[in-house]
Amino acid sequence: MAGRDPDDRKLVVLVRNDLKMTKGKIAAQVAHAAVNCAFASKKKDAVNFNAWYDSGQAKVVLRVDSERELFEFKAVAEALGITCSLITDAGRTQIEPGSITCLGIGPEKVSVLDKITGDLKML
Amino acid sequence: MAGRDPDDRKLVVLVRNDLKMTKGKIAAQVAHAAVNCAFASKKKDAVNFNAWYDSGQAKVVLRVDSERELFEFKAVAEALGITCSLITDAGRTQIEPGSITCLGIGPEKVSVLDKITGDLKML
Repeated sequence: MAGRDPDDRKLVVLVRNDLKMTKGKIAAQVAHAAVNCAFASKKKDAVNFNAWYDSGQAKVVLRVDSERELFEFKAVAEALGITCSLITDAGRTQIEPGSITCLGIGPEKVSVLDKITGDLKML
Repeated sequence: MAGRDPDDRKLVVLVRNDLKMTKGKIAAQVAHAAVNCAFASKKKDAVNFNAWYDSGQAKVVLRVDSERELFEFKAVAEALGITCSLITDAGRTQIEPGSITCLGIGPEKVSVLDKITGDLKML
């Protein structure tokens, strides 16, 4: 079952819960992150991409409470060589233009991602 | 500006609002639809894919209130030859296993999609 074995792959998206976004807005931002991570990993990290793509493409959406946390997780992911994508909203609606809304990390092994984001709550 | 000119492309995702899903669950389902539509269109509808991918990848999340509506919009999209992806949840959490949660349509011209889904409300 995707996401249950430590060798399975998943993609996590960390979303700022301190911004006032509707559920539709959040979904669009998470979709931006997922599409970016998928294409980036297909190009540069085919082993993780293929294992993820062929086994259900598990996606997990987690919450953070500040922009600062997104930058911290991004720095950790980059240091470990894991694909990631920080999303800046065009800001036409709901929130300030240029707001950073979420961060996609992966696809990568569940065991690796859980060491980084395992303490975060589901959104 | 992506999504404002009738020749611009967008991807719409229609989400069932009658299911009791958290905002994180909704976001993951929408991300499934967006990733599926993106890869499918890259393979089979490169003109729309490239125009969309190179111009901000606009994504709009809309609401429907039943499974029946998703099938109806899917039939219309397929009749018009537009890429679409119906998402069935693995159902490990929150909702019944096998529930159909959302439908991605596109990327396609804004003018074409607005004729099909223009009456739907944002989620």
